[in-house]
Order: sequence, then C-alpha cells, then structure tokens
Amino acid sequence: MPRIIDALIGRLGPENVLTEKEDILPYGFDGTAALKQLPLAVVFPHAAAEVATVVRLAREERVPIVTRGSGTGLSGGSVPAPGALVLCLAHMDKVLELDTKNLTLLAEAGAVTQDIYNRADAAGLFFPPDPGSMKISTIGGNVAENSGGLRGLKYGVTRDYVMGLEVVLADGSTCWLGSKCVKDVAGYNLRDLFIGSEGTLGVITKVLLKLLPKPAARQTLLATFAAMDAAAGTVSAIIAAKIIPCTLEFLDRKTIRCVEDFAHAGLPRDADAILLIETDGHPAAVADEAAKIEELCAAHGATSVKRATSAEEAVRLATARRSAFSALARLRPTTILEDVTVPRSELAGMVRAVQAVAEKHRLDIATFGHFGDGNLHPTILTDERDADEMARVELAFADIVEAALARGGTITGEHGVGLAKKPYLKRQLGDDSHALLRAVKRTLDPEGLLNPGKILD
Amino acid sequence: MPRIIDALIGRLGPENVLTEKEDILPYGFDGTAALKQLPLAVVFPHAAAEVATVVRLAREERVPIVTRGSGTGLSGGSVPAPGALVLCLAHMDKVLELDTKNLTLLAEAGAVTQDIYNRADAAGLFFPPDPGSMKISTIGGNVAENSGGLRGLKYGVTRDYVMGLEVVLADGSTCWLGSKCVKDVAGYNLRDLFIGSEGTLGVITKVLLKLLPKPAARQTLLATFAAMDAAAGTVSAIIAAKIIPCTLEFLDRKTIRCVEDFAHAGLPRDADAILLIETDGHPAAVADEAAKIEELCAAHGATSVKRATSAEEAVRLATARRSAFSALARLRPTTILEDVTVPRSELAGMVRAVQAVAEKHRLDIATFGHFGDGNLHPTILTDERDADEMARVELAFADIVEAALARGGTITGEHGVGLAKKPYLKRQLGDDSHALLRAVKRTLDPEGLLNPGKILD
Repeated sequence: MPRIIDALIGRLGPENVLTEKEDILPYGFDGTAALKQLPLAVVFPHAAAEVATVVRLAREERVPIVTRGSGTGLSGGSVPAPGALVLCLAHMDKVLELDTKNLTLLAEAGAVTQDIYNRADAAGLFFPPDPGSMKISTIGGNVAENSGGLRGLKYGVTRDYVMGLEVVLADGSTCWLGSKCVKDVAGYNLRDLFIGSEGTLGVITKVLLKLLPKPAARQTLLATFAAMDAAAGTVSAIIAAKIIPCTLEFLDRKTIRCVEDFAHAGLPRDADAILLIETDGHPAAVADEAAKIEELCAAHGATSVKRATSAEEAVRLATARRSAFSALARLRPTTILEDVTVPRSELAGMVRAVQAVAEKHRLDIATFGHFGDGNLHPTILTDERDADEMARVELAFADIVEAALARGGTITGEHGVGLAKKPYLKRQLGDDSHALLRAVKRTLDPEGLLNPGKILD
Repeated sequence: MPRIIDALIGRLGPENVLTEKEDILPYGFDGTAALKQLPLAVVFPHAAAEVATVVRLAREERVPIVTRGSGTGLSGGSVPAPGALVLCLAHMDKVLELDTKNLTLLAEAGAVTQDIYNRADAAGLFFPPDPGSMKISTIGGNVAENSGGLRGLKYGVTRDYVMGLEVVLADGSTCWLGSKCVKDVAGYNLRDLFIGSEGTLGVITKVLLKLLPKPAARQTLLATFAAMDAAAGTVSAIIAAKIIPCTLEFLDRKTIRCVEDFAHAGLPRDADAILLIETDGHPAAVADEAAKIEELCAAHGATSVKRATSAEEAVRLATARRSAFSALARLRPTTILEDVTVPRSELAGMVRAVQAVAEKHRLDIATFGHFGDGNLHPTILTDERDADEMARVELAFADIVEAALARGGTITGEHGVGLAKKPYLKRQLGDDSHALLRAVKRTLDPEGLLNPGKILD
C-alpha cells in the first residue's frame, strides 16, 4: 500500500478514502465507451481546504490526480491515468448562495446541474446550460468540460454563465478568479483558461454562476422533411429571418427509424430528417416567431409541422430527440458518440459526409445533434469486442474529423478532448497553437500531476 | 539612429516608419490624462505578415513594442515604454467578410468599431459592444482592452462577441485561436486569455466577431430622482421584476448640473440622480417592459419619467448621458475618469463612498456610469499642474479603489489596468492569482518585449 494512502486516511478519515478493488472499480471509467483504468484510490474531500491537502500530499508523493464529479464525460476526461488518485467532489455538492439582486448563484463544484437549475427556477430565474447528463452531472464537471447542450444557439454554453471560480492550483494554493461584477477587466482572464481545461490545470472547487430571468413563454414545434437538404435549408432560412430559436435539433433517417421503433412517438419512418424547434421569450415574440418558423418550414419543403398546444404535447414532441441516444444505444453493444461541429452553413454537407464515411467503412452511423449551433453527434453503433470492426471505427473517426476540419469545424463541440480526441488536436490547432497549449500546461502544472495524458501527452 | 530603424524602413518602406519628433509626438499618449512617453519610432504594417516581421526584428534588437489602434484607451495601455517601438495598426482597417449565414464578421484589428457596427447594421444585424470612443476606436484595441460600453447589462462586453483571433506571438509566429463554430472545446481557451491582455501577450491582427439579429424595437426613458437611494432602489426593482434593459445609465447631482449648464437639455438642477433607461427587442416585449419600468420608477420615488415618443426624442433624452464626459471635461484642465465596478446591489453605497472621498480630500468628483452593470465612472476634475491637488487625487484614487474592493468590486470594469491601475492589481487579485498572471506573462513573452510595464511590472 503506497505511503500516500495512510496519509490520506489520516487527513480525510477512513470513510473518505476508498482502496478496495470493488469500491474503486466504478471510478475507473466515465461515460466514454471502451476506456477504463483502475485508479490507485478514490478520495472524497468535503471542502476546498481538503482538496488543497490532497493536492499537496499527491505532489509530495508524485502521485497523479484526476478530478471527477459524476463521471458522465464523453471523451474520457475523467478516466484515471495509471496509478492516479481519483479526487471525487461528489460530497462538495452544496448550493451556497442564490443572490436574486445580482442574479448569481454560488455552488460547490460537486453540486448537481439539475439542482442548480431547480434552485434558479424556483426563484423565477433561469440557468440555461443543459448538457444531456444534467440530471446527474456536476457543475464542476460541466465547467471543466465547458459543457454545451440543446440551448447553445441562443443561450451559449457553460462558459457564458461562469462569473467566478475557486481553483486549487497544482502547488496546493487556492485562487479566486472572477467576481460578481458584470464588467471586470482586472488582469488576464485566467477564469476562462480553467473553463474547459478538463482538470489538467487545477481543481475547480467553487463556481459563481450568472442567471437570467426565466423566459415568460415557450413554444415547441416538430417539422418533418423528406430530404435532409430541405431541413438544412430551413435552418438557414430561420436564421436569415433573424430568428434565433433556443433549440434547433436534428435527427437523421437512421435515428428517426430507431427512435420510432423504440419510443413509438408517431414519427414517419420514411422521413429523411426531423427538426425539433423551440422558441422562448415574451409571449408575443414567441407567437410571432413560431408562426414565422411554421411558415418557413412549409416553404422549404417540410412534409409536416406539428405545433405543441400544451406543455404535455411539447414534452411529447421533444421525446423523439431526447430518447435518440437511448434508442440508438440498445441496437449494438457499444455506442460511440462523436461530437464534431461545423459552421452552421456547412451542416448539410457535413451530414452527407458522415453518411459517406459510414458506407466507406461499412459501419452503422446514425446522426443527431444541435443543428442550430452546428454541433453534430454522429453515433457509431458497434461492438468493442470486434477488433476488425473497431479498426474500421477508428478509420471512420479520423475521416469524420477530417471532414469537419475541411469545413472550418472543430473536432469537439462540447464533449472535450480528453483521451478520445487527443490524437486530432494538433491537426486542428496547428503546431504553433498546440505548442502554446503545452507551454501553458507546463506553467500551471510543472510536474504534470493534474489529470496527466488528457488533452496533451 | 538605432539599427532597427534602417531594417524597418527596408522592410516596410520609408512611408510606413515615422521617426521625426513632430511625427511621433501624437503616439506618445492615449486618452489617459497625465501620462506620456515619446516612442523610439512608429511603424504602420499593412498585413499580419508585416506585423510578424516587425515583432521578429524587435526581438532580435531587444526593442520593446507597444501595439496601438486609435489611442483612445483610458488606463495608459498604449503609452509607450521608454525606447519602445509603436506598432500602429491603423492601416489594417478592412472588414474582410460579413457572413450572414453564420452571423459572423471578420475584420483586421485596425478596423474602426463604428464601421463594424455600420456594416452589421446595413445587413439587419447588430454588433452590441459600444464603448464611448467607438466612432474612432479600433476593434483590435477594444479586444485588447475587453471594452465595455452602455449595453453591458443585457448584451455583455466585447469578449462576448469574439469568436476567433489571429495573434502574432512574441516569437513572431502567428496563431489562429477560435473558429466560426458556436461550440468549440478543442484545447485550452487561449482566445479569451488574449482578450483583455492589453497587448502584453501578443499582437492581435484579425478578429472574428459574432453578430446578433437587430432588435426590432427600442424604447428610451429618462427618470429623475430627488434622492440617489431612490434611483438605486428603482434599479433593484427593475431587475427584481425580471426586466433586463439594454441600457441603464446614471448621472449624479454634480454631473446633472454640469450637463445642464453645458447642454441645456432641460434637466432639473435640483435632482440628485437621473436614470437613462433603454429596452429593446420584440415590439410587444418593449412596450410591456417600458410600461412596467415607468410604473416602477414612479413607485420608487421618481419625480418625473419621460418616455421618448420618437427616435429624435430618444436621442435628445440620451444627450444628457452622452454629453456627461464632455460637459465635465470643460470645467477644469484635467479630467481623470475612474472605472470602479461593484455588484449591482452595492451601487448606492459605492456612490455615497465616492462622495465621502471627494469631501475628505477636498476634490471635485462627479459620478456617472452604467448603473445596470455596476460600472461607475467617478470623474475627478483637477489640474495636473497643481502638485498638491494631484497628491490628493492619488489618495482619493486609492480610497475609491478600497471602497470598491470592500464591496466585492473590481478596480477596473472596462478601461483596463494599463499603467493607471497597476498599483492596485495585487490588492484585488491576491498574491497567488497575481503570481499566476506573472507566470502566464513569462510563458507567452519570456523576454518581456510586448508592452512592458503594463498590467504587471
């Protein structure tokens, strides 16, 4: 038993240190398929001071640390490096303050995203970022990955709602970055450097979030298209009409069939594309926008447009999109979710490129995602035990990434680089930018003990 | 004549290198009172490649560089260090692309902010950041300072509209940071590190901006208060009513009198505070919000509320606020604009604290600013030739900064640290964060040649 375990038990108490294989097994993987590694041990701090203690002990013993919330990540960001200590912030889960005067919420990093949404909602306020896993994901994990969700087009992503961070640095010191001030230009913006840094630059222990007033009204529409190009053209027409819906989601033919088989939502099995569209805001604005959207869908070749007439119907219409991943996941043993993003104008070409990749490599790929913000989730249905097929999956991955980059896109829109996208990062950034990332990593984590092997080698 | 001058003339042509005292004099100061330093020379590159050439030559000769746009800064950020070369990007002023499909605009760093606004406006689009100097300021300067303006409460600041940057680094290499993708989490966010870095980490040469659809309607209101607390209470009530106006500006008693003497706008000379409020968006939303704001102003003690009934009247109502600085600047030889910001809930106390500081140090201080986002501009009316008074100004500055920090505020909301706020930065950030800033600076500019002496020593 390494010396650090005794020290950790001494400082945190035996109930907060797991070392038995059956206890630490669940901390060896996250939501990413085919990646796992048993950690050295798992520790549960209850305060930032305990996090600092753990970081200092780990540094003395040169043991790497991987910080983790609920482990819902989709790029292997919280899969431990060999011999790493998992620092699980699940017990630091308190909402510390809801400031209705300044429209801010202060929470510990382990607070669950849905709880934050609910606390804001109960006060008539709105926390927009809604990653798919928000019912169990932690806000610290969302910030570390700069998580997105379904409302990116109108409301942006997690980064856009972070006003301040408490961070424990690699040397065990604690910094507060940011403030409750709407405007603050005092010094370099290090807060935004930590957002999306995937636990490789420091440990986020507290998060100060910006809230919005809750939109007074919302309208959901579901439009069906016989041709994917018509759906893409409709999206362009909506934006050209100066309408920014809060949600603009897309399902391709394969996903539609699969969802219909699974959820019996009444989708037409012969449709080539479905758009789920939501607009929110002042009731009159929502009514005008919904009418205009309906008109644009029809004018651009929608075969049907359904408009929810009640909150229940809105939920029912959204079911097709929300159950997409579950529906796909039941078809094959392994489901690998891609996360490429392209400028909105390149969407139709990108969807076609994914279909061509599937044919070329004889793979089952269904695509759904956030059409409004260009963020697609081509989903490869496969079996990690089939070495031949997995080799083709790797080739398909590389082709999809190339197709996105050729269109001015990014290798990851919201899932992060982690382990899954690390091989492609330099290709996107170029040598100079990649070298700059390395330099920043070396500066903030000179001994390379914070989530080693993620983003960069 | 230092060797670098010949090399610069050889590379850029003699017409793009100024060395005569009368030519370089205007580049020795910016919009900040009482700060000046003659540069070594001024060069005008016409492309990023020429910027890289200048950076490389300066590095070889170990000559510091200060990058400059129109020199409208208010914290001395572009005042040259002794012996520094001024790199003026005024000739790199082209809007390169307006992409109406993806709602983006690509411009060279020297493009004038107003031109960018106008280009967007002509396409029915909206570039919200509106720093006071936008008619002549350059977008590169706005990004380098992370400029704010009057629309911060609802629309945020320059940072919120930057999707990508081209940056020439200290070693002369060129990086592109960011993309047209609404979501992009590929690697550390270095783009946001350069935003607000005041030319100390690299030279910004191109900027990719996000645009919004233009709001369909706008309504302007002007409310007068006999007591400043009533104005502050009204602001709180507006936010508590879940209304986020696009503009929520404040003038104190001294500013009101001064503006009235100057502009004869019909302001009551006995008012203690004026709020200029604008709401924008869907016409029905604007009408509802304006009615509610009117009601809240009356309920919280406004002595009068005027509502613009035409675009001309809206401009007239806004005149009081827009002429505040000019009106104040004519009273005394030197006008020093402060820029502290506090959480919105602390505004009334902060305005009172500024008034107490003025009395304590026997100074003329008028306060106006962006009440909606807590950003105040206490304006010290003084004379830089009066050494005794300037000593008291320094003491007043320090007291105002302390009062803001004691309220969870920041030493600078939108003007930057530059030279003016450098002495106070460590006090705000704390030793650990300040040390982190230094480490980042050393990493990106190891030889300390990029705008030395700004932000950090």
